[in-house]
Amino acid sequence: MTVASAPRILRTVQQVRQWRLDCLLNRESVGFIPTMGALHAGHCSLIAESLKQNDHTMVSIFVNPSQFAPHEDLDAYPRTVDSDMDQLTKAFTKKQVSAVFIPKVSEMYPSGIELEVSKQRGAFVTVHGCSEQLEGGSRPQFFRGVATVVSKLLNVVTPEKVYFGQKDAQQCVVIRNLVKDMLINTEVVVLPTLRESSGLAMSSRNAYLSEEAKSESSVIYRALKAGESFYDEHSKDGEAVDAYLISNEIRNVLSTAPSGFKLEYLSISHPETLDDLTTVKPGIGALISTAVRVPREDGQETRLIDNIVLK
Amino acid sequence: MTVASAPRILRTVQQVRQWRLDCLLNRESVGFIPTMGALHAGHCSLIAESLKQNDHTMVSIFVNPSQFAPHEDLDAYPRTVDSDMDQLTKAFTKKQVSAVFIPKVSEMYPSGIELEVSKQRGAFVTVHGCSEQLEGGSRPQFFRGVATVVSKLLNVVTPEKVYFGQKDAQQCVVIRNLVKDMLINTEVVVLPTLRESSGLAMSSRNAYLSEEAKSESSVIYRALKAGESFYDEHSKDGEAVDAYLISNEIRNVLSTAPSGFKLEYLSISHPETLDDLTTVKPGIGALISTAVRVPREDGQETRLIDNIVLK
Repeated sequence: MTVASAPRILRTVQQVRQWRLDCLLNRESVGFIPTMGALHAGHCSLIAESLKQNDHTMVSIFVNPSQFAPHEDLDAYPRTVDSDMDQLTKAFTKKQVSAVFIPKVSEMYPSGIELEVSKQRGAFVTVHGCSEQLEGGSRPQFFRGVATVVSKLLNVVTPEKVYFGQKDAQQCVVIRNLVKDMLINTEVVVLPTLRESSGLAMSSRNAYLSEEAKSESSVIYRALKAGESFYDEHSKDGEAVDAYLISNEIRNVLSTAPSGFKLEYLSISHPETLDDLTTVKPGIGALISTAVRVPREDGQETRLIDNIVLK
Repeated sequence: MTVASAPRILRTVQQVRQWRLDCLLNRESVGFIPTMGALHAGHCSLIAESLKQNDHTMVSIFVNPSQFAPHEDLDAYPRTVDSDMDQLTKAFTKKQVSAVFIPKVSEMYPSGIELEVSKQRGAFVTVHGCSEQLEGGSRPQFFRGVATVVSKLLNVVTPEKVYFGQKDAQQCVVIRNLVKDMLINTEVVVLPTLRESSGLAMSSRNAYLSEEAKSESSVIYRALKAGESFYDEHSKDGEAVDAYLISNEIRNVLSTAPSGFKLEYLSISHPETLDDLTTVKPGIGALISTAVRVPREDGQETRLIDNIVLK
């Protein structure tokens, strides 16, 4: 029996650069999975794909302050580095993750970082046109924080490929545009959402929920699937389908959720521009995305997002 | 007699990446001078220093739309690529510039670029805290445009060193913060302002001026030098000097300028944060910077900037 050794931990930008230069001079390719930790099977599916496609795989674990507003859950966000490292060590036995980048906040924000945008100083990246709607509607600084930290991480790691999950559909659109517009030399790979057997999309924030609440939350995916079925049935002769009718189907299922569940938004939008659609046309398709607030035993709420892509 | 051959011209991001990868695999260092063309002795002094300090030197020529407001001189800005290439070929005989990057707008802005900020879509970089004052006061989108295009160019060229002139003092501060905050792997080198024998700071915009107007514009540097002399004299025992008194000295000289010269701003600020100073302390020093509108024969005005650093 061989005991798997833990991947190497790098804590500074300088260490990552040296590691990356060695890969480059050996002509070894690097795949990169940026995470905020609290790793679950969804992350592991991205890592597994990177291990297949690249000579080396780097994972970063960094809870990025600039994507949290002052009233959001930055302090409460799950930080589980020891169990994350344990999981990374045990989950991949044939080929290991080469290195894990776990920087301090001061390493990623050398000018410091305030959560209030009006007090922030230093360099920030905004991707206009796809950051303001959906998730950006209730969290106006969220994608600016994401685009900024992903830019920094890509500047340091310079991977051949970077991996994201379809679960964060709008994030994928923002990052694709970021990489295209900023002429960043990396390929963005988006992989399908991993789900619990109930259908619930895997998310680090599921850790906030009881088993019962998780089971009840599977209504979100059932609702999206009902919308998809309606679209599939009504578009099968190549006809466009009224987005309002698809939306109704979904709302009908969501209305069966236990009391306390709150629908924050349900959107049917263009899959690339995220512009609202009134009809969905086969060939163009649509992104149906939703955010739901789920009540917790401690009286707080957990905000879950999910989406499904119509073709 | 050897006839110098012109440096190689690269027009696409892909060509620059291939060229850069070859340098890297040969472990040859790259120095980079981003320009908007209309090259003059100021640019040449940056290039000469890069040729000394690096194995390869790349110059880019790109008139960056996003740093111009709709009412500014984007269309009129001097575009002289043929004479620029001629100058690059003839000015450096011992060692040549290795390559010149001359991209189209669509290469640098793959999502397109509108001059009106409210219509802009895609990724932009802002450096908060040092972009809003001085030049940014009358040109609110200027440093956002500069930070965005310099980020893109650095992403493509990935030079060991990038060179800027002290003439654009605020730009140097913005770029230093950009590189630090965004974890860009390059060293920012700032070299002294080159001047005509009259003292006038070299600038591509001097091409708009008659010889007489150029000669008259030398009053700007004489005024800054008068401020410096006043400071040197009054701080020689290590005492702080009232910024208002230094400013008065400068304004007295500027008031001797021909009619039609308009002072847009005169600022005495912290050399690193660009915060306004009320007193200048030896050891910390200050950046004195100014913008003056100079009348032209065609009835228009040319805006000249200059600065001097107190120690």
